[in-house]
Amino acid sequence: MIRTAELSLQTKGHADMHDITEAVAREVGRSGLSDGIVTVFCPSSTSALTTIEFEDGALADLRRAFDEIAPPDRDYRHNLRWGDGNGHAHLRAALLGPSLTIPFTKGQLRLGTWQQVVYIDFDNRPRRRTLVVQMIGD
Amino acid sequence: MIRTAELSLQTKGHADMHDITEAVAREVGRSGLSDGIVTVFCPSSTSALTTIEFEDGALADLRRAFDEIAPPDRDYRHNLRWGDGNGHAHLRAALLGPSLTIPFTKGQLRLGTWQQVVYIDFDNRPRRRTLVVQMIGD
Amino acid sequence: MIRTAELSLQTKGHADMHDITEAVAREVGRSGLSDGIVTVFCPSSTSALTTIEFEDGALADLRRAFDEIAPPDRDYRHNLRWGDGNGHAHLRAALLGPSLTIPFTKGQLRLGTWQQVVYIDFDNRPRRRTLVVQMIGD
Repeated sequence: MIRTAELSLQTKGHADMHDITEAVAREVGRSGLSDGIVTVFCPSSTSALTTIEFEDGALADLRRAFDEIAPPDRDYRHNLRWGDGNGHAHLRAALLGPSLTIPFTKGQLRLGTWQQVVYIDFDNRPRRRTLVVQMIGD
Repeated sequence: MIRTAELSLQTKGHADMHDITEAVAREVGRSGLSDGIVTVFCPSSTSALTTIEFEDGALADLRRAFDEIAPPDRDYRHNLRWGDGNGHAHLRAALLGPSLTIPFTKGQLRLGTWQQVVYIDFDNRPRRRTLVVQMIGD
Repeated sequence: MIRTAELSLQTKGHADMHDITEAVAREVGRSGLSDGIVTVFCPSSTSALTTIEFEDGALADLRRAFDEIAPPDRDYRHNLRWGDGNGHAHLRAALLGPSLTIPFTKGQLRLGTWQQVVYIDFDNRPRRRTLVVQMIGD
């Protein structure tokens, strides 16, 4: 059994981080499925997904790491070619990856106690985003 | 058909690396499924999964890379707030990611010859860990 | 319903990047499935997958990032032990990851407009590669 949902959110860009755990859990609940996987996917090349303990300290540390790996104000070949100034966002998104797969049993996500699903918009402007949330199970 | 198993292991922390390939293959075998995917998931925000050639050289190189990207002895905002000293572990786990999805056919994982599934505990103390191993297939 | 296909390609190594979006979409079409996920998997410990806007600028930026994180000409313990000179490729592949899971609906991949599936061969020589492309859906 396959159920596909969408999750819309308004972001501020610039490594704006959103805790989407509850929204994903809600879709799993609505699907009526007991056991299976949920795949969360960003149809975007400037944003990405992972899990983290969603508290200000860990989020600031992750933001600093990306500022060091891919600083916004460095030269990027993408920017030279397209002039949109978000070369660092493309690089960060490619490194972190667009998809996350989480098992659930008895209708509950199998996340750790201090583990949340985080969506990060690395783009350099506010965006309206729609993520795909797809459940496969029985 | 969905089958969910758990894999328990004792780790030493400090980027302790475990080859869990055989354990995952065993669960695929036990499921009785022929073709499908197995999702291995860490319900944890201080440990992560990937694949690697599991030999001491490649493991040491990966450990050094994480020591450079996220040194244990640097200042982390997570540590200032919570005082548990594992800010680097949270950062590394978020960067590497908590889930891995591997196809299998005829009951065999489709890994490369020199490719093993590695579970890495980045936390700063020994932990008892339980991973989720879930098969979907027929 | 499970369908498993293979995708063969000839690479040049040295972070050779291939846009495999059309090939993956073709396998989804051939499967006859409407809704589900496709898992693309590299059975290799020196190559990896992600998504990116597949244009020369963004590709060059990604290549530079890997040249900085894991330069080819640095000392690697893997190389000291095995003498094959591709320690950087093992490290890069482990960091980026071997698998990618993409949802599809009505037979169409749910990728963004500017988002392509990229296979990167980090090895230090040309290789003949075979990827696994597996669809689960109905």
